Amino acid sequence: MVGLTVTNARPAIAPTFGTAPMSGTNPIAFAAPSDMPYPFCFDGATSITQRGKIEVVARAEKPVPKGWLIDAQGQPALDAGRILADLDRGEAAFLPLGGQGERFGGHKGYGLATLVEILSASLSGGAFLNDLIGYDPDGSRRPYMLGHFFLAMDVAHFLPLEVSRHITGQIMRQLQASRKEPGHDRIYVAGEKEYEMEQRIRHEGITINRNLRRELQLVRDDLHITGYESWL
Amino acid sequence: MVGLTVTNARPAIAPTFGTAPMSGTNPIAFAAPSDMPYPFCFDGATSITQRGKIEVVARAEKPVPKGWLIDAQGQPALDAGRILADLDRGEAAFLPLGGQGERFGGHKGYGLATLVEILSASLSGGAFLNDLIGYDPDGSRRPYMLGHFFLAMDVAHFLPLEVSRHITGQIMRQLQASRKEPGHDRIYVAGEKEYEMEQRIRHEGITINRNLRRELQLVRDDLHITGYESWL
Repeated sequence: MVGLTVTNARPAIAPTFGTAPMSGTNPIAFAAPSDMPYPFCFDGATSITQRGKIEVVARAEKPVPKGWLIDAQGQPALDAGRILADLDRGEAAFLPLGGQGERFGGHKGYGLATLVEILSASLSGGAFLNDLIGYDPDGSRRPYMLGHFFLAMDVAHFLPLEVSRHITGQIMRQLQASRKEPGHDRIYVAGEKEYEMEQRIRHEGITINRNLRRELQLVRDDLHITGYESWL
Repeated sequence: MVGLTVTNARPAIAPTFGTAPMSGTNPIAFAAPSDMPYPFCFDGATSITQRGKIEVVARAEKPVPKGWLIDAQGQPALDAGRILADLDRGEAAFLPLGGQGERFGGHKGYGLATLVEILSASLSGGAFLNDLIGYDPDGSRRPYMLGHFFLAMDVAHFLPLEVSRHITGQIMRQLQASRKEPGHDRIYVAGEKEYEMEQRIRHEGITINRNLRRELQLVRDDLHITGYESWL
């Protein structure tokens, strides 16, 4: 099968010429079978970046790169801690893939984010845009009521599966083998880094830090789960 | 119906960390019915820009904005005339939506361009990547053998059409009504500018310049078409 799935999310991306977070980071995920050891497997937000990256920058106490987010006046938002608070108040917004304005194609990222919003809401009746804020005006939390869209296409309706897998594999191999930028010795295809990480983790296990280990122990004990004492 | 269509094209976009034009500008087009006077109708390349824009810059004898294309060494390509020649030789390449490297999400534009390449080739057996160069090593032209992908989904299988149209319309209206960036008094949705242009053209007609008029007259006479003398 070839798979395409998208979801909306709480307001994050400002539309082109706007400053309010409206669409979610609205990722597009797509996978196709190949004759490589891994499928082509893409999963990317339609914003330049997303909340998790801002949290990493905040913990590292670094400035946020100019061009990732804007404030309510459309000026660059650079203070990670303030951004995290401002996002929830609608006073900061992620820029769509392609950035602010139309010069570098930001209107295309905005269009793709809206495409995802429509596929996520207009076929399922799920919530959209500001309905996804997740709390009522009185501040109480409410369910997000996200919508999702899933499409699976049986390749064999169009071409023999092995032929299709080979074509997709050829596309992946030709991209990987193409001319490199000076200072780079590899070109990746979507799914390749994740496949290599999975191989490494299956061999070496998953490294968790002390805080996460303690949290997992608390969950374990809270749920009265036994038998995993040697793991955690 | 909700429609999604993509096509590949002759090599144009460099993959992230690469410098060779590999994917086409590989547009994604998507339309959904709304209760507005026009549907949501998006059509965007997965590159920042495309060949037509470079031709416009070349005619205006202006420099190409930094960040649109790179040369074979991964440096900014700024000379429009040279770019048009270099593109065909594989010595210049468009950057994917999101730009060079991963800092502003260029790997997402590259992933989307590859998604389009796969949908265009791996279900139809159409040509892909460098097979689309359009000439043989001896320089003779050959057909491009592009592949396309078309998907139409009957909304009524999921929600009553009027409900879906209203949700899509609400998404469009809420985006249009959202907070503007200083210096901008409108936020557009995909399809809106084209709708307004169509309304204007239906009223005012299509302006064509003398060169285009002469070309159309030549085509008319070449095909022995009569009855359009007053138009052209």
